[in-house]
Amino acid sequence: MNPAPVVIGVDVGGTKIAVGAVTRTGEMVQAGRYPMDRSTQQTSLTSIQVALDDFLSSWPHAAPLALGFGVVGRTDPAAGIWVRSMNIPISESVDMTARFGAPYGLRAAVDNDVHAATLAELHWGAGREARDFVYLNVGTGTATGIVTNGALVRGAGNHAGEFGHTFTGVAPDVPCPCGRCGCLEPVASGGGLIERARELLPAYPDSPLHVAEQQGQLNAHAIFAQADQGDPLATRLADDMVNALGIALANLINLLDPQAIVVGGGVWADGWLLPRVQRIVQATALAGALSDLESIAPSSLDPDHVGLLGAAILAWEVVAERE
Amino acid sequence: MNPAPVVIGVDVGGTKIAVGAVTRTGEMVQAGRYPMDRSTQQTSLTSIQVALDDFLSSWPHAAPLALGFGVVGRTDPAAGIWVRSMNIPISESVDMTARFGAPYGLRAAVDNDVHAATLAELHWGAGREARDFVYLNVGTGTATGIVTNGALVRGAGNHAGEFGHTFTGVAPDVPCPCGRCGCLEPVASGGGLIERARELLPAYPDSPLHVAEQQGQLNAHAIFAQADQGDPLATRLADDMVNALGIALANLINLLDPQAIVVGGGVWADGWLLPRVQRIVQATALAGALSDLESIAPSSLDPDHVGLLGAAILAWEVVAERE
Repeated sequence: MNPAPVVIGVDVGGTKIAVGAVTRTGEMVQAGRYPMDRSTQQTSLTSIQVALDDFLSSWPHAAPLALGFGVVGRTDPAAGIWVRSMNIPISESVDMTARFGAPYGLRAAVDNDVHAATLAELHWGAGREARDFVYLNVGTGTATGIVTNGALVRGAGNHAGEFGHTFTGVAPDVPCPCGRCGCLEPVASGGGLIERARELLPAYPDSPLHVAEQQGQLNAHAIFAQADQGDPLATRLADDMVNALGIALANLINLLDPQAIVVGGGVWADGWLLPRVQRIVQATALAGALSDLESIAPSSLDPDHVGLLGAAILAWEVVAERE
Repeated sequence: MNPAPVVIGVDVGGTKIAVGAVTRTGEMVQAGRYPMDRSTQQTSLTSIQVALDDFLSSWPHAAPLALGFGVVGRTDPAAGIWVRSMNIPISESVDMTARFGAPYGLRAAVDNDVHAATLAELHWGAGREARDFVYLNVGTGTATGIVTNGALVRGAGNHAGEFGHTFTGVAPDVPCPCGRCGCLEPVASGGGLIERARELLPAYPDSPLHVAEQQGQLNAHAIFAQADQGDPLATRLADDMVNALGIALANLINLLDPQAIVVGGGVWADGWLLPRVQRIVQATALAGALSDLESIAPSSLDPDHVGLLGAAILAWEVVAERE
């Protein structure tokens, strides 16, 4: 038996959906992974529904108290609405309680995946030590979740944390989908790195990255490894990424004076990037802020669970409101 | 008679000291201005003491409840300590309660002048409408006070708000006292603008700014006016200032998603700068954040009183702690 009440967290990704039952203290009692068919808005929502139904049909304990969803794209957490998304094609806004909660008689909360992960850090990770920290996710894109005075910063319309369009001036000729040049994201995200490598490959006919591309292995890890071997293209890409991240992080550290930067996302996994970014930050941020910054370090939370835990916190917030 | 309890706010500047008695609702009951002799730490502290003694000796009502100081330099608000300052030469830290409060049996609070002004905005200005806003002061330097979730962001060690060392890449050859090049402040503060004009004047022998310099009138207003007349040096200086402020503000708006930017400081006074910066921000910040940003506008508070009101809020915070 499981006496502790739980909520259901749902981490909605472009390729998979993670569902988990989470207690108020952050214990993951049961979790499951399900496929996402993001062909259309309808298939996407059906995928979520199927995942939820399957998970709950096998849930052996007392009914959960609420649902929480971490999703990509734009959300309105106060209204519980998934407003829109590109990666998963949501063009008509979705009232999450009406669509997913009502069949179970539960309220449903929603926020974007980076805000959700930051809430997980706040409650069960870095936030146990720090009232001011920044969660920096570098994956397909480059986004931050900001915590000040012990609370997530959502901003006036839940857009806070957009870090990828910080102007760094590194590779100032590289255009960004936002319409400007010189943004962080096309130079310093996992997705941007690969896209930029593909654009530059023809100009570097001898680069070993051609082999990586042919083998379907053109990724951040391959680029860092070839930079270590002295390949000029890989070195150019990796150096620009390090410099752009360092400059943008120094701006942010000066502005917010955080106690910690928590890094998440696949590009940090092999350990190549972090010490190099730390070095740029040490060389460029102001002494006062640096004296307060205790660490730039990976999350202590399981990367497979952080999104799910954050979604569960959204649900726990709904429960707390009702109490 | 004055039945409403008051605190004493003290705005400590490099050339003058403003002292005022302020009620809990922000009414300035009485105010005075006093000279500052900042020759040494001792003369500076004596100037403050003389100002405070004079003000309180002529105060006709019940004793105030606490003292609050807005100062330049580094402070530790939690401990009530003025840690150090360059502009007013404070090299040995000052316990404000021991030095200034004890003779009157009062506790004394302290924070830097930009945090204090931001608190005044939060309680009695922009904060009445917005839970997320940024106070941007462009004067001798370039600093911000950040409000998120309805609270001032002090950061891990009270360094939050350092905006002047945002990398903008505008005039990337201009060195900053911080040791880097490309910072906002040397290009886009009142002080930086004048310093840069002086450095560039020899290369522009025909510039009318030579006349302004000879007349002791080389300031932001003169530079903006000559830019309007097509003077190449003034145009270069003014354009760089507009672009640097616009880029740095766009970064900040993307990151924090504020409802308002409140501008303060002398360089905005003649109305030249603001519409031009607004235009750059509109062209470069992200659509989501722009849709949430209601205004970039001057403070509604009297610029002569905002620092004093903020210092009074620091004192009211001490009173509230005790209650």
